[in-house]
Parts: sequence; C-alpha cells; structure tokens
Amino acid sequence: MSRHAVVLGAGSWGTAFAKLLADAGRDVRILARREQVAANIRSTGMNPEYLPGLRLSERVSATTDPAEAIPGADLVALAVPSQTMRGNLAKWAGFLDPDATLVSLMKGIELGTTRRMSEVIVETAGVAADRVAVVSGPNLAPEIADEQPAATVVACSDIDRATFVQRAIATPYFRPYTNDDVIGAELGGAVKNVIALAYGMATAMGLGHNTRAMLITRGLAETARLGVALGADPLTFAGLAGMGDLVASCSSPLARNRTFGEHLGRGETLEQAQAATRQTAEGVKSCLSIRDLARIHGVEMPITEQVELVCHEGVYPRVAMAALMARSPKPE
Amino acid sequence: MSRHAVVLGAGSWGTAFAKLLADAGRDVRILARREQVAANIRSTGMNPEYLPGLRLSERVSATTDPAEAIPGADLVALAVPSQTMRGNLAKWAGFLDPDATLVSLMKGIELGTTRRMSEVIVETAGVAADRVAVVSGPNLAPEIADEQPAATVVACSDIDRATFVQRAIATPYFRPYTNDDVIGAELGGAVKNVIALAYGMATAMGLGHNTRAMLITRGLAETARLGVALGADPLTFAGLAGMGDLVASCSSPLARNRTFGEHLGRGETLEQAQAATRQTAEGVKSCLSIRDLARIHGVEMPITEQVELVCHEGVYPRVAMAALMARSPKPE
Repeated sequence: MSRHAVVLGAGSWGTAFAKLLADAGRDVRILARREQVAANIRSTGMNPEYLPGLRLSERVSATTDPAEAIPGADLVALAVPSQTMRGNLAKWAGFLDPDATLVSLMKGIELGTTRRMSEVIVETAGVAADRVAVVSGPNLAPEIADEQPAATVVACSDIDRATFVQRAIATPYFRPYTNDDVIGAELGGAVKNVIALAYGMATAMGLGHNTRAMLITRGLAETARLGVALGADPLTFAGLAGMGDLVASCSSPLARNRTFGEHLGRGETLEQAQAATRQTAEGVKSCLSIRDLARIHGVEMPITEQVELVCHEGVYPRVAMAALMARSPKPE
Repeated sequence: MSRHAVVLGAGSWGTAFAKLLADAGRDVRILARREQVAANIRSTGMNPEYLPGLRLSERVSATTDPAEAIPGADLVALAVPSQTMRGNLAKWAGFLDPDATLVSLMKGIELGTTRRMSEVIVETAGVAADRVAVVSGPNLAPEIADEQPAATVVACSDIDRATFVQRAIATPYFRPYTNDDVIGAELGGAVKNVIALAYGMATAMGLGHNTRAMLITRGLAETARLGVALGADPLTFAGLAGMGDLVASCSSPLARNRTFGEHLGRGETLEQAQAATRQTAEGVKSCLSIRDLARIHGVEMPITEQVELVCHEGVYPRVAMAALMARSPKPE
C-alpha cells in the first residue's frame, strides 16, 4: 500500500495541488490553519473560501493537527504564505519522515535574509538540499481546479525525486516536466510577481500590447540576469517556470499581483490598493528582497527597481515608466 | 545632407515604419502598389485603409514608381507580403544603391523553397548577407502609429549596420536593441504566426490562461529547437524577437493570426475563416514551410504539426489539442 501525501496549507494553490495528488491516485491530507476550513473539506469535500465550485475526491481529508497530517507521508507539499514559511515549518519539521520529499509551492524571497524558499526549507527542517523539489509553472489554481489543461516544472537536484514528484501529480489534464534547476525555477516564480505588478500598472495606464509584451520580455531578461548570477541555467527562464508562469500571471485579469498593480496604475497609494484588494500582493514584499539580491550580486534590474520605487517610495507609475523608456539604447 | 530612406510596401507595418524613420529625423519615401494609396499619403499624410487615424509628418512622401522612390536611399525597408517578396524585389533590385542597407520587416518562410526572407533578399537582389538587417519584435503597427512605448530587435551579421538601423528608427517611444542573430530573429517572427493560430483556437475553445501560457511557452520551445538546428542562438527566442513578438501577437484580440485561429477554434473550415476575415493569415501558409523545414532538419514541432493538420487536413481543433496533451511526460 502506498504512503499518503500531505499538503501544508489550505489556500487556493494548496487545495488545487491536493486535487492533483488525489486525481493521480494518492490519499492526501491537507493541513489547514483554521478548523472551519478543515471541517468544510472533511464534511463536504469543498473549500469554498479559496476555490468555490471545486469538489475534492474522497481521497482528500483535512485536519488542523500536524501530528495527524504529516507522519508517514512520503511527499510533503508546502503551500503557506512565503513570509510565514520559516515560522510554520519550524513547528512541523519534527513530524517529517526521514525519507520524505519536500515540495515547495511557494513563490517568494524571504525578507531580510534574501533566501529562496527551498533554502529556508533546508535551513529550517535540517534536510539535505536534494530532498527539496520546487513545482512552478503557469498554474492558476482556479483553472487547475476546473481541469483546464496545464503544464508545470518539477525541479530538484536529485532527478529521481523530480521523477517521483512528476508521477505523483501527472493527470490527463496536468503535464509536469522535470528539470534540475531549482534556483531558476524559484527565481522565475518570485520575480514574476514583481513583473506582474508592473504589467498591471501598464494595463491600468492604458498602455498597449506592444508595451506590455516588452515589459514581460525585459522583465524576464532581468530575471534571467539575476538567475545566472545565482547559478541558474538561463534556459530555465524560457520555459514553463519562467516565461510560462509570467505570461499566465500577466494575462489573467484575476491574478493577484496583476490586479494589485492595476490599482497602483490607477493612481492609488499602496494603502489604498491594500484596502481595495484586502491583501498585500506577494510582489510588493518580494520586490524589496529581490532588489537586495540584485544589489548584492551587482545585477541591473530596472523594472524591479521601478516597481520598488512605486510601491515603497511613492513614485508615480507614469514617472517610473518614463524612466524605463529613457534608458540608453543597447545590444539586447 | 543625409540621404533618404524608402519603405517598399504601404501596408500597416510599412506605413508605421515610415513614421518611425520620419520621427527619428529622416526624409522617407513610401512605394505603394496602388496609386490611390500613394495619392492619399501625398495629399493628406494619411493611409486610412491600413492605419486609420495616423497623420504622417511632411517628411514622408509616397509614389508608385520605384525609379522615383529607391535610387539614392541608404536604407531600404521591405514590407510586402512574404510570399510575394521574391517577385516584387526582382523588379526593384536594379534601383538599389550599391551601399544601401536592406531591412526586412517580413515574417514568413517562402513556400516551396523554405527560405527565410533575408535569404530570398540575398538571392534576388544579389547582395551580400551582411547588407541585410531584420527588424522584429512586439510591434503591432496600430500601437506604434499611436506612439505607445515599444521595443524591437535589429538583427544584422554586420553590427555596424545594425547600429545604423537602430539609430535610424530610435524615437522616444520606440527602443531598438541590436543583435547579430538574423536567423533567430526571422524564425521567431515566422513561427510566431503559427503559434498565434493555435492560441486563437485555444481561446475560442474556452481554454484558460494556464493552457494558453503553456501553448506560448512550448511553442517558443519548438521554435528554439528549430532555430538551434538552423544555427540560431537559443537566447534570441527569450528576447523581444522571440517571446516578445509572440506574447504581443497572442495577447492582442486584433492580431490577425490569433483572430484567424479563433475562427478555426469555433469550428469554421479554412474557407469559412478566410471568408469571414477576408484574408489568409500568414501562419496558415507558413505552417507548411515551417513543417517542411522541421522535417528536413529532424526537429520535433508538435504544435506546428497540429496547426498544419487543422488548417490543411481538416482535423478538428479539439482533436489536435487532445493530441498535444497526450504526449508522454518528459524533461523540459
């Protein structure tokens, strides 16, 4: 009998990932923070607050007790807000089986430490780096819940583990590709949130498809520059975890960072945008740590810099866009 | 006194390119096929059939006489339909100054010969390959006419000529980057039309942003595979002439190949789609020559193959999409 998988975090992506694991044939436990969410999933198979309309199979159960959820699992997926991950995992690490594969679904860079999520996992759980896989790609959770065809990257330095995770989530509507570039997959996902903020601003400012395609492309170029400085393979950024994720997050009018950027592009302050969306988009936080990473490694990231100025220094989006266009012409 | 530039072809991109040259400070002559188009531009500065609303500066003139338009020009831009280029240029080649730089604005692969446009130019005009530059990027003509910020790639094996073209079209709203990868820039532009057809089909079929981002990403991956086989730099495809152009053409609801693909995705036959759009999208033709190129070089291009089957073999778009998703999982 095969072991169960566990998803730590009951947000929209965590819940959709539990559906993938179940549809691919596994028993899955979701660890929720709030009893109400766990009770909903247990009694109705639904998580209406995060993925209204989705009905999970009977293979998925839910609890708020890590001692019930984690022990015995050979696949442990982490899907909590990036900036809370260190604190959360510290409480859970003692329940992990010694051979479990840890799968990061999170897209952020830790503030203060500039650590990628897989680095935080390695430090906090005290596991070897080759036990941590990263799943990243164009994976808007509501569309996966709806079984729209999608693909993703499973990145792990241990290719056997990457293949193990690939098989654990492959379904007729979900196509995972393996890759050994953990750094590239994580940076693609994290910087994407910042570029999607810029895309949202440009959209709200009425800028056209040429301008927005340029932002995406030059945004991916600066992501790749930082990635190469950190040891990533530049080609990862042309793949699903780079371009694919970025394009999906910029194209969807419902994606969180793009929507937040639209509020800023209409002239709202950070506080007004937070009030209107009842959250802070991940890119608003990550642009600070990504800018720090870029400075440490001497990498130019003009779009990230301008997003940081708009979010945290009160610079107007029109001024930021003009600054981007005024840079001197150069080879690509 | 500086020499004039000429644009051969008075369609939407040719006309917008003439505007760029004029706004960057040059006298420009447009060679139109029809006297009515030339007369409109001469008398009103407008080309309402192709770019309604645009008013060209007095630096732009127009004629239907190549002997009046071409001699003396040091920059000759070619903007005629790809499949008519060989025949047109044969008539014009005798008027070219011996030092003129030829700039291809065309995005297609010649049927039958599988030649890229710059290759057709070299063969037909009898010029050295380093005299031909390619301009390609996210450059939807109506948005450039509207002076929306945009960027592009100027590719030429002679980097001095690339810089010459870069300076000739750089304006505050248009940012050209130089590059020496002519093959990559041309293939990016040509295969993009085929992928945009697939994107349009997926859109009309109601598929979500994940699926469409996957199509764009895997479409660019197969473009890069063909490019590498032909000698292109894989990183070109992550740039403005690859990803940038592809994203703009897929994002804009007005782009021709995407629109044509939407007609097919709604279940129309090729003939019905042609009748509805009163044209044949370039990708419908190029998918044949690109498929041929791929076979000659032993490159797998699954999306191009399925587009060809839908366009020319009557395969249903739903069947084609199912065939793409059913391929076996693999490394990225």
